[in-house]
Amino acid sequence: MWNKEAVSGQQSAAGDSGILFMVSAPSGAGKTTLCRKAVDYFHDLRHSVSYTTRSPRDGETDGIDYHFISKETFREMINGGEFLEWAEVHGNRYGTSFNETKKLLADGLDIILDIDVQGARQIKLQIVNFKFKIPGVFIFVLPPSLEDCEKRIRNRGKDSYEAILSRLENARNEIKEMMWYEYVIINENLEDAFERLKSVIIAERSKRERMMGKLKGLYPTLLKE
Amino acid sequence: MWNKEAVSGQQSAAGDSGILFMVSAPSGAGKTTLCRKAVDYFHDLRHSVSYTTRSPRDGETDGIDYHFISKETFREMINGGEFLEWAEVHGNRYGTSFNETKKLLADGLDIILDIDVQGARQIKLQIVNFKFKIPGVFIFVLPPSLEDCEKRIRNRGKDSYEAILSRLENARNEIKEMMWYEYVIINENLEDAFERLKSVIIAERSKRERMMGKLKGLYPTLLKE
Repeated sequence: MWNKEAVSGQQSAAGDSGILFMVSAPSGAGKTTLCRKAVDYFHDLRHSVSYTTRSPRDGETDGIDYHFISKETFREMINGGEFLEWAEVHGNRYGTSFNETKKLLADGLDIILDIDVQGARQIKLQIVNFKFKIPGVFIFVLPPSLEDCEKRIRNRGKDSYEAILSRLENARNEIKEMMWYEYVIINENLEDAFERLKSVIIAERSKRERMMGKLKGLYPTLLKE
Repeated sequence: MWNKEAVSGQQSAAGDSGILFMVSAPSGAGKTTLCRKAVDYFHDLRHSVSYTTRSPRDGETDGIDYHFISKETFREMINGGEFLEWAEVHGNRYGTSFNETKKLLADGLDIILDIDVQGARQIKLQIVNFKFKIPGVFIFVLPPSLEDCEKRIRNRGKDSYEAILSRLENARNEIKEMMWYEYVIINENLEDAFERLKSVIIAERSKRERMMGKLKGLYPTLLKE
């Protein structure tokens, strides 16, 4: 195995801004597992903790998995312009804090957002319209077939029958949205899918324009402005 | 380790074109070693064998390391428009065959070109001007400092004093050219640098627009035109 400290360190030095990685997928495609593995692997990649109005599931901890807040507080945060994006999914609201995101990126840390298609689309529009000037990378995780996707949703076992039907319909609509994502990772098995996600993160960190601070430090006489 | 057959197979199926990876670097930065390792690693990545007028060095084989040809034959190939790019470096000419490149890419194979800055620039211009419609990815390999670069050139021990001076001057000029490359890999140690090159290749193969053939095959009902 390689020295991940050394490799990831190529990016974070010398004042280059962090990168915001957005990972979307239909329900049950494994995006949450992939994002967690990425945060474990890269010492300078952070998970952004979303705000949500839904109730904690078994094993979920406030402040770690989500910030669990009331509908009223969520509405106040919307009105205060505190969200980079927010969305309502299956009757619950989810949102990402603008300030927390900007602060981590300014510190040179990368962020990975486990985010639904609606939320990713809001961020995409803000970037396209130059309202949010950060390097954003959009990644779509896909099960190997529609049949497989349906099987995964049915086998989660955590949801009511109505919730399952709603998730199936949502999954079909979400998959069509992959068309505006930059990268697609087919999650046929977790190890290969993670290798791909890791590669996208390392490759994006290796883009020349994202390394200019570092490069000017290494070659001051050749790369002065 | 991951199953590289499975991962690289995500890209090559279903009629998606191959990708042309161009790797440039100042002399002695280790690009040739990195390219060879990449070809060994990915079963569907091919090294493009360049044509050259220079004499074989010890251990080099005609048809494998280069096609060694005469100056006259090289001139005829230029006149016949047979080169995707060609360049004169240190008094010798090097060129890449147009037809061989197109054929491999059409077969869905990726190609890695160990190529100097002049040659890469020719291909870049052809792509920018839509004369050569293929996905091209430009990667620059860099020693960790100018001092290190000079040390590597001096320590090669294969070149005359004049050749060393010429290589040093060339290296300084070439490093400035990194400004139009897409990716920069700092070769501080070979293992980390190769991990980065591997990641760029896997990430580029995971770009959505490069996988459309494959994706339409997996989701025919959702992604029909």
